[in-house]
Amino acid sequence: MAAPVFNTNTDSLPVNPDLQKERATASFNVLELTHILDGGAEITKRRKELEALILSDPAFSSKDLLYLTKSEQYENALLRSVKLVQWKDKYKWSQEDVAMAQQINNSTEAITLHTDMFIPALQRLTSEEQRAKWLPLALKHNIIGTYAQTELGHGTNLRNLETTATFDAKMDEFVLNTPKITSMKWWPGALGKSSTHAIVLAQLVIAGKHHGLQAFIIQLRSLEDHTPMPGITVGDIGPKLGLNYVDNGFLILKNVRIPRENMLMGNASVSRDGQFKQLKSDKTNYSTMMYVRVMITRWAFGCLAGSVMIAMRYSAVRRQLYIDPKAGEVQILDYQTQQYKLFPALASAFAIFFTSQKLISDYNRELQNLIKGDKELLAEYHSVTSAMKAVCSDIMTDHISALRRSLGGHGYMNLSGISTAMQNSLSLVTVEGENTVLYQQTARHLLKQVARAMSGGTLTRSVAFLGQNLDSVPQLDSSEDCRNVHLVLKLYQKMAKRILVQAGTLLQTDLMKGLPEHEAWNKNQVTLVRAAKAYSLLHLVQCNVEGVEGLRKSVSPELVAALRRLCCLFALYYLESNAGLFMQTEAVSPSQLDIVRSTQMELLSEIRPDAVALADAVDMPDSGHKSVLGCYDGNVYERMYAAALGEPMNKTQVHPSYYKHLRGMIKGTASKL
Amino acid sequence: MAAPVFNTNTDSLPVNPDLQKERATASFNVLELTHILDGGAEITKRRKELEALILSDPAFSSKDLLYLTKSEQYENALLRSVKLVQWKDKYKWSQEDVAMAQQINNSTEAITLHTDMFIPALQRLTSEEQRAKWLPLALKHNIIGTYAQTELGHGTNLRNLETTATFDAKMDEFVLNTPKITSMKWWPGALGKSSTHAIVLAQLVIAGKHHGLQAFIIQLRSLEDHTPMPGITVGDIGPKLGLNYVDNGFLILKNVRIPRENMLMGNASVSRDGQFKQLKSDKTNYSTMMYVRVMITRWAFGCLAGSVMIAMRYSAVRRQLYIDPKAGEVQILDYQTQQYKLFPALASAFAIFFTSQKLISDYNRELQNLIKGDKELLAEYHSVTSAMKAVCSDIMTDHISALRRSLGGHGYMNLSGISTAMQNSLSLVTVEGENTVLYQQTARHLLKQVARAMSGGTLTRSVAFLGQNLDSVPQLDSSEDCRNVHLVLKLYQKMAKRILVQAGTLLQTDLMKGLPEHEAWNKNQVTLVRAAKAYSLLHLVQCNVEGVEGLRKSVSPELVAALRRLCCLFALYYLESNAGLFMQTEAVSPSQLDIVRSTQMELLSEIRPDAVALADAVDMPDSGHKSVLGCYDGNVYERMYAAALGEPMNKTQVHPSYYKHLRGMIKGTASKL
Repeated sequence: MAAPVFNTNTDSLPVNPDLQKERATASFNVLELTHILDGGAEITKRRKELEALILSDPAFSSKDLLYLTKSEQYENALLRSVKLVQWKDKYKWSQEDVAMAQQINNSTEAITLHTDMFIPALQRLTSEEQRAKWLPLALKHNIIGTYAQTELGHGTNLRNLETTATFDAKMDEFVLNTPKITSMKWWPGALGKSSTHAIVLAQLVIAGKHHGLQAFIIQLRSLEDHTPMPGITVGDIGPKLGLNYVDNGFLILKNVRIPRENMLMGNASVSRDGQFKQLKSDKTNYSTMMYVRVMITRWAFGCLAGSVMIAMRYSAVRRQLYIDPKAGEVQILDYQTQQYKLFPALASAFAIFFTSQKLISDYNRELQNLIKGDKELLAEYHSVTSAMKAVCSDIMTDHISALRRSLGGHGYMNLSGISTAMQNSLSLVTVEGENTVLYQQTARHLLKQVARAMSGGTLTRSVAFLGQNLDSVPQLDSSEDCRNVHLVLKLYQKMAKRILVQAGTLLQTDLMKGLPEHEAWNKNQVTLVRAAKAYSLLHLVQCNVEGVEGLRKSVSPELVAALRRLCCLFALYYLESNAGLFMQTEAVSPSQLDIVRSTQMELLSEIRPDAVALADAVDMPDSGHKSVLGCYDGNVYERMYAAALGEPMNKTQVHPSYYKHLRGMIKGTASKL
Repeated sequence: MAAPVFNTNTDSLPVNPDLQKERATASFNVLELTHILDGGAEITKRRKELEALILSDPAFSSKDLLYLTKSEQYENALLRSVKLVQWKDKYKWSQEDVAMAQQINNSTEAITLHTDMFIPALQRLTSEEQRAKWLPLALKHNIIGTYAQTELGHGTNLRNLETTATFDAKMDEFVLNTPKITSMKWWPGALGKSSTHAIVLAQLVIAGKHHGLQAFIIQLRSLEDHTPMPGITVGDIGPKLGLNYVDNGFLILKNVRIPRENMLMGNASVSRDGQFKQLKSDKTNYSTMMYVRVMITRWAFGCLAGSVMIAMRYSAVRRQLYIDPKAGEVQILDYQTQQYKLFPALASAFAIFFTSQKLISDYNRELQNLIKGDKELLAEYHSVTSAMKAVCSDIMTDHISALRRSLGGHGYMNLSGISTAMQNSLSLVTVEGENTVLYQQTARHLLKQVARAMSGGTLTRSVAFLGQNLDSVPQLDSSEDCRNVHLVLKLYQKMAKRILVQAGTLLQTDLMKGLPEHEAWNKNQVTLVRAAKAYSLLHLVQCNVEGVEGLRKSVSPELVAALRRLCCLFALYYLESNAGLFMQTEAVSPSQLDIVRSTQMELLSEIRPDAVALADAVDMPDSGHKSVLGCYDGNVYERMYAAALGEPMNKTQVHPSYYKHLRGMIKGTASKL
């Protein structure tokens, strides 16, 4: 293509004046908030050092990444994986550095599963001897591994996985098989093309007797030339809505023989003579599962915050139509409807942030007790993490979808950054526990707690409200009341308690009528999920309130005030979204709902002057988010034009298909059918 | 790749027994419903003839379409466009045939804009002389045209388009220019690579005086070799969330000269001496705009119905976990939560269908009056079509997103069909009037009608309820009441009327306080949009009720009963979703909401036996929807495996990037940084 008609060199352009104005008038210090989101000024500093290294490398930041095919995306992600490993070794990165590097890269590497699941599983599930053999190989990346659990026919119901590992006593080997098409391993990341080894979950069979699911380490590909080993059929599962840089794979095993020692024997063992022994139950597995769910809330924050930042900046730059027809076109951020799309999303990002922070600190503080098997604590933490994984990923994806729409037509382009963020993040509602299933797990736990509360039993922290008398909670009678988040929180508690009690009563009524428990459960499934969601929202509001109030002493009053406005908006927004539940439980009356609405509208106006600064605090560099619409300098249109010039179809003035299809039609010389 | 390990030849397999069972037990005749959706048995027959022709052609049905790059997608879509033109000529297709062929092909051609906008605009905007010159060329496809309106900086605010057409009196020519980067034409379909001509909207300037937006026909590319004409810079705008088979384009004009006759002079003219004359206002333009919005409701039905069909079949085939742990794994369609995802989506598809049908028949019946400029009628139809375009596309995309999630992890794969449907359909919420803008247009009209109702004026059909006394509407006191859709409809009217009156009052109060009108409007924007949405739902419910009741005499009672259940579920589902509004307006009390909920759950159980049959009636052939999960025979897993084998990355056992990036790391021989 010829030279650009308009200037596309954004380095030569000043920051968009609308953004300059927004930044000049913020009520608080942006950097102070950035430090909070990073976890401290030192961490911000370190992040920026790592960003400078990573994002100056074209593999991470090239503009051409927008135009890659699936296969090229994979190749590029593999290169990123390799680079990160090399940098880690060269610069002796700490574990925190590695995590931060992943975060900077939005985890868009091909073989994250090697580090995130294969190595932890090796540490967790092996005997000491096995650990000594395998771990160094994995840590040095002389083998690349994945964790192959789900099958074509079974994702949620793991107990019914069908892959078999049959002990051959004569040869002292296990023989692994994929008996049916539904038994194919399907989905594991890095399985399709990258991994040389896999930890495979399979039904252990010894002399015809089943011993449940066990983990086996299997070599998939030659360490010489990467070709699949005998009996192994392996490949990529094909194009996905997002995450196409990962080679999610399938695996078929046909009489694959492995030595007995390749069963991971940390928790169970099979002896030379075929004796199966359960050594201990795998509680660490449980804790890993919870940890991954906590990390998903953290990712949910990152995805949502990045998208909000993009949408906010673009909405400050984009001018369209008028509020006052006599004045000029306005920044679309000045429309109340636009604010009502963006600010609740911003508020949700912070609510998820504080919730995630609380979950992580609880996890770190109580990890030992969890592993020791403090049953009460474990059950509560499991219930909370299930609920938070579900509700945070739900809220995040809902808002990202709405943010994408808020950009108008341009939000439909990949250069917006949000369309890609949306596609990638949509995986989070089904991975690591499908959300509807998770809400039910939480509902089960909660109903037990309701019963306990009714019989006067002691309650753990997150359900303490079930034991409180919330009947006489004060009413929301003014905008001031609405801004009292502690009062609003009480109303959430009242609502959640009554919804939970009501759900329990409905279930109980059906049981009393003689319905078997499982039928009664299914008959009330929608009600139970609704109750778990109500509780989840309460928990989010609570974490948000505690998080913001916890900053009161260490942070400037202006920033606390700004965060309080968001905290309040979050609580009121979801109160209104669930007005039916609040009114039904008499937590809010119809006329009070009007006050909730008008207070929200007041808050939009109050948040407006800080909106760009609050979003700026997310501080994702342009080369990281890769959004043309959300760049720091706001030179949106120049970047859009530049991006279009990079589209591969523009490499030639005339597309090759013209000669094949169009020319004949235009010239009337096309061959007849 | 080697031969498949498992059978992937689904032709050799029987229909999945679960689907057989579902189909055998339906309460009504599926074909009867298919005929209704098609518009009659004859049309179904004709559709199947066209499907047999079109979908047997690999350009339309090849499995490889799943794996194409953007450029290949475009090339394939261009081929489809050419084929459809050739078939149309060869078989002398009627206009209905052409529309049906497009529908069969989900409009996935590259140059639909030529037929859908360029030719209609030529018919509408030209003088007789111009029509005689251009129309035959366009109809014979000797020129390919697009309609270039929106610019980088202006989509919604068309009056501020910046492209200029300056009359050069000396040369008797117009000189077209793109003065600024924001003035680039951006988005028009088929502009990037396909079109030889464009109708360009530009500000007419004669001797320094502006005469508003006029349409000009411009040659973009040589008819000899397709290279751009002098002064023309044109290209593809780059990758999008969906619709990547269309070459949406940008266009920059630099002193592009066209003869004076290339201004389309049907509605305005410029004489040789530079006299501008407005001949008539372009009312047909208005009617075209409304027609396109109506067609969007029709597409919304098609997209949603296809996705429901896929999700329903898969949910009947997929078995996972248990209701009764002693019995086997259940069809996931038996879970109440799954039903509550799928059945409201199904019900919504039918509600949109009946609404769209009503809009089309109103349009056809009253087209002449609309064109003649029956102001009342025009304002009402404009308000209704704006609202229905917005609400139908909103509801459709919400449900498609939820349906995709309802498929669990496998819904994340493109082979699910729904992920692609979702990506494509998401364009409909912003094109042809961004939905938030449209709701406001409707709100403006509705508030005028509220004022008229209050002053006792006569009201048009769709707002007649505003003149009714709805204070003493009966209450919902039983499941039976909930099933009385006429009663529920009254409650929607009561709710909508009160919400509208309240919105008007809030606006009025702010005006009384002395706020300028535009400020008062913006201050109440969220409320006004909410009110327009409330009205939109009422209108959908009303069209749905009328549509189903209208079938009573011509259709079997079993089918009417089945459709009534869906009609009722739709009304109750959106009542509950908007419970806050219904309770606030005293249309429903808190205890009544419980009855609404339990009635919905009853309806789920009653719909369950017919669920697959209702979805089957959509009757989209497998080669049309291309969903591996939603195929008629339900042999889901075989098709998934077959699809994975087609993934380009599986063409070689070892991916080329292994040699570049992975090998060195694994062998420890990678070059150091």
